[in-house]
Amino acid sequence: MIEIKVYTAHGLITCRHRHNETLLQTLQRHEIHLPAPCGGLGKCGKCAVRVSDEEAAGPRSPDEDRYAPAGSGLRLACRAVPQSPLTVTLTERVKTAADDSAAKGGAIDLPVVGFPMVRSVELMLEPSSLTDQRSVHRRLIDELDDPDTTVSLSAVRDAGRLMEDLSEPSDAAGLMISGPSGDRLVAVEEGVRDVLPALAIDIGTTTIAAYLVDLSSRRVLAVRSEENNQGRFGADVISRIAATAQGQDLTAVIRLQLSKMIELCAESARIATDGVLAATVVGNPTMIHLLFGLDPDPIGRAPFMPLSTEQLEIDMVALGLPAHPEATIVAAPGLSAYVGPDIIADILASRMNETGHLSLLIDIGTNGEMVLGDSRGLIACSTAAGPAFEGANIRCGSGGIAGAIDEVLRDGDALVLGTIGDESPKSICGTGLIDLVALLLEDGIVDETGRMDLAAARESPAYKDRVTERDGEDVLVVTTPGEPEEVVLTQGDLRQVQLAKGAIAAGVRTLLEEAGVGAHDITTVYLAGGFGTYVRPESALRVGLIPSLPVERVTAIGNAAGAGAARLLIDRASIEEANRIVAMSRYIELSRSETFQHFFIDEMIFP
Amino acid sequence: MIEIKVYTAHGLITCRHRHNETLLQTLQRHEIHLPAPCGGLGKCGKCAVRVSDEEAAGPRSPDEDRYAPAGSGLRLACRAVPQSPLTVTLTERVKTAADDSAAKGGAIDLPVVGFPMVRSVELMLEPSSLTDQRSVHRRLIDELDDPDTTVSLSAVRDAGRLMEDLSEPSDAAGLMISGPSGDRLVAVEEGVRDVLPALAIDIGTTTIAAYLVDLSSRRVLAVRSEENNQGRFGADVISRIAATAQGQDLTAVIRLQLSKMIELCAESARIATDGVLAATVVGNPTMIHLLFGLDPDPIGRAPFMPLSTEQLEIDMVALGLPAHPEATIVAAPGLSAYVGPDIIADILASRMNETGHLSLLIDIGTNGEMVLGDSRGLIACSTAAGPAFEGANIRCGSGGIAGAIDEVLRDGDALVLGTIGDESPKSICGTGLIDLVALLLEDGIVDETGRMDLAAARESPAYKDRVTERDGEDVLVVTTPGEPEEVVLTQGDLRQVQLAKGAIAAGVRTLLEEAGVGAHDITTVYLAGGFGTYVRPESALRVGLIPSLPVERVTAIGNAAGAGAARLLIDRASIEEANRIVAMSRYIELSRSETFQHFFIDEMIFP
Repeated sequence: MIEIKVYTAHGLITCRHRHNETLLQTLQRHEIHLPAPCGGLGKCGKCAVRVSDEEAAGPRSPDEDRYAPAGSGLRLACRAVPQSPLTVTLTERVKTAADDSAAKGGAIDLPVVGFPMVRSVELMLEPSSLTDQRSVHRRLIDELDDPDTTVSLSAVRDAGRLMEDLSEPSDAAGLMISGPSGDRLVAVEEGVRDVLPALAIDIGTTTIAAYLVDLSSRRVLAVRSEENNQGRFGADVISRIAATAQGQDLTAVIRLQLSKMIELCAESARIATDGVLAATVVGNPTMIHLLFGLDPDPIGRAPFMPLSTEQLEIDMVALGLPAHPEATIVAAPGLSAYVGPDIIADILASRMNETGHLSLLIDIGTNGEMVLGDSRGLIACSTAAGPAFEGANIRCGSGGIAGAIDEVLRDGDALVLGTIGDESPKSICGTGLIDLVALLLEDGIVDETGRMDLAAARESPAYKDRVTERDGEDVLVVTTPGEPEEVVLTQGDLRQVQLAKGAIAAGVRTLLEEAGVGAHDITTVYLAGGFGTYVRPESALRVGLIPSLPVERVTAIGNAAGAGAARLLIDRASIEEANRIVAMSRYIELSRSETFQHFFIDEMIFP
Repeated sequence: MIEIKVYTAHGLITCRHRHNETLLQTLQRHEIHLPAPCGGLGKCGKCAVRVSDEEAAGPRSPDEDRYAPAGSGLRLACRAVPQSPLTVTLTERVKTAADDSAAKGGAIDLPVVGFPMVRSVELMLEPSSLTDQRSVHRRLIDELDDPDTTVSLSAVRDAGRLMEDLSEPSDAAGLMISGPSGDRLVAVEEGVRDVLPALAIDIGTTTIAAYLVDLSSRRVLAVRSEENNQGRFGADVISRIAATAQGQDLTAVIRLQLSKMIELCAESARIATDGVLAATVVGNPTMIHLLFGLDPDPIGRAPFMPLSTEQLEIDMVALGLPAHPEATIVAAPGLSAYVGPDIIADILASRMNETGHLSLLIDIGTNGEMVLGDSRGLIACSTAAGPAFEGANIRCGSGGIAGAIDEVLRDGDALVLGTIGDESPKSICGTGLIDLVALLLEDGIVDETGRMDLAAARESPAYKDRVTERDGEDVLVVTTPGEPEEVVLTQGDLRQVQLAKGAIAAGVRTLLEEAGVGAHDITTVYLAGGFGTYVRPESALRVGLIPSLPVERVTAIGNAAGAGAARLLIDRASIEEANRIVAMSRYIELSRSETFQHFFIDEMIFP
């Protein structure tokens, strides 16, 4: 495998080239999307890149003569098939949704309309005189001419410095931060800032994603995705709550981790951390409680009354996060102890609340949350789906890390495995697990009760060499039998999948029953979250994770929680929309629902 | 002199008993005001106090038999004439306007109407249940039912703790702080707090006064008055601005001093500093700039454009002041670079803007500010009166400190001197200086041009022994000739008085001319500030410091700036009133007024 270093506007990204693929394909696999309107046929020249070595980028095609002639230092990415390590510089600013492989699933779309949370305003500074002795502060207030806008002392200080010895009227740029309590002028500068960096943060129980967004160009400057360091206190929110009750300071853990992530994002985007001007954050209620220093304890026990489900706003520095001293962090509102700001952000991103067609949104993370509805109203529930799809309690399970099997197909008698980062397989993540189970169901190796049929497997050419025993337990070897690093599936793993799948499917059926509609009434199923984005809809349908519907009605919407958080940054009015979504939503508590219990038992069976 | 220790509800106060005065009189001189509805005639028993030694409190009067019988440990303060050192405990909570002698002049009246900046609200906490899963935060919002009120996370945390294991609805007390941007619920507690401490702060160039006020009972809990530690950088604002320009950190100096004063006030009132819930601050614009960390430089040079004359609001902890973490400090708005929040507070306290009668307000501190007007409008100016009245540039001058001569009368051929704290005379303060000059004018020892007539003095029995020479300069000895500690008046001192008096009188005449009225149209002259409170109106009239008017039109209103600051605490609506005062006021810049220059020369002459 050849390493290709790519300098983008947002820093260096290292890509791994697969044998015989074009440079364009390599970059696309690493989510660096070069324009290729001609479809990669060497006709348009839009995918031209600067290369460190024209030779190393492989034999020239005559198609390149027009846009990337020999000796120009350029090559067309769609024609170049690298032969040796290479450094590539993008000739245009290209959207890079991710800057490290861990951010897989982190791509977000940014809305293009709306007034962002931070913006520049034009100001006219006039020299002081004996006939106009208004203070600098008063001049700024008069200039802004909006009773809902406040002027911070730092802006007054800035303007005072700019007005020293001013002899004639002069233009200046004001930096305005919008909070839910109004706009605040926080700085006055000579020129308009090129970039207005702000952060959209999605704190998952397992994974944290931070998007550094430029609110001026509406571009993603950097993405950072990390496993949540709270993981050492347990995989699910209940363990985290218990650890907190035992005196562990999980608030300090998340604040420290976020601080470091912000520093890394800023470094990668080559900005100073005090240039970070605003942040929005979403996450499940426990994660939000911990970040804001609220005791999550009541979330862990009936009647599940969280301290807050409200929109929260506080100075970033008050949470110990590196940022501009006047930067505010806004947490989106949530609905209940288990349907949090992350799900409201999912809805914001899907816009399912804006259409008259019935939609179902499923966000499967460490918990599984489901929302059903349309512009007339939404109902939501949450199931303790368990973190099976994030690898917990699965013998060789893992999250979406490099080397995790994320794709399982059968080609004749061979199993074809895809892995994250195309590394040699070390574990299996949720999407791989669903693919595998779907395949085993289809091939009759697992029956509808979830039992592994060893006899059938031993008779099948595709599986016979894969059935064996490990630590006294029958297992199916997923990796090529005989390889030293082995990934296996156990009967226990299948039970975990059944429990998780059963909980989600039962939650969906409970919502349908509450709404008085059938699965066939659903126009669109939105799958959100990293798992939702990468799970193969066919497999999800085959195992019964989602209602039996034509596959074209299923849409993966990526990290919708992160996209919703970014929408809050880019379109400040959407915080009102978030509150409207809460107001139009009804929460169904499944723990006391007999309907749910009934469906749960029923849905444990595979279709 | 006998020392009497008095334990009040606000701490220990040490009083000095004068020969033959009653205990009631001693306490009154130290501003401990016992109730004495019978006028101190031994009839009502309201002034009964507990004494350490019934004998030491002097011979018993038969009047005491009823309310303070022998052996009860009580004495009537109005009848007891202490003979030896004594410890007294007040039997009731008695208003102590001052807790140290330096606070002389610090007594303030508190308004009795209005909603204070901090108040308790009743809240009903209901147990959570599966049928009502509203978050704690949402319950508080619903309970307050006011869209302009915000709920802080600390209040959410408090309520969460109180609601743990709550089985039936329960009353609680909410602590609400009003800021100009709305009300904020900052704490939720089981019971209503007894006291709601808040601070009214008046930062003078020379003296700082801090009043710790209980917003629940509207009582002053403690007063602290200190010389401004910035004094070492110069006596007037111009020297302070220059010191700042040279890199001295006067912001740190004032913040440190205020912090210590707050600690001492809290200690004296026996409260924790984090019980301080709000503060208001007034002062001249330079002092306010320095406190808030704004560069005062533009105040020091034409065209005198300050960075801010606006109402300012910030967290107390952001200024490094010890207080409740959610406590806000509000600075009143000002009018110009030299008519600041202190003068707006004077006007608030005098209520001269609320009446149809023409009033003149004079606040003589390190500068002299004057305001003329009525409910239709106000005009104001400021003169660099110089700190002569605070002792600067006066050979034996001082501020109002213990041992300063603050009163000079002639009784036959003897000069009778009053001193602050009744200590032996060590210096002369502004009020003593005005008394002395008025007396010398009256006795023909100083002529209208301000010249000391040594020949006349040598012929006068009252002054002949007092004329002498010190360091080659003719002086008049004010203290008893021959005493080792000598206070003298020099010709140079008289010139300083003429300059200061001339500036103030000329400022007043400029305002009258601007308003198109005469001095006789003035119904009331308000004298504000320590100097204004204690200057004898007759003497001020005699030297021509205030316009020639019947003495009964002159009213001393004490530390009106401090009282105005306290009004802002006790009646939160008065911050709007302060802004209205600014809007209805016009500032006259005297530095470019020929009228003022003309009057100034004219007013240098004594009447």
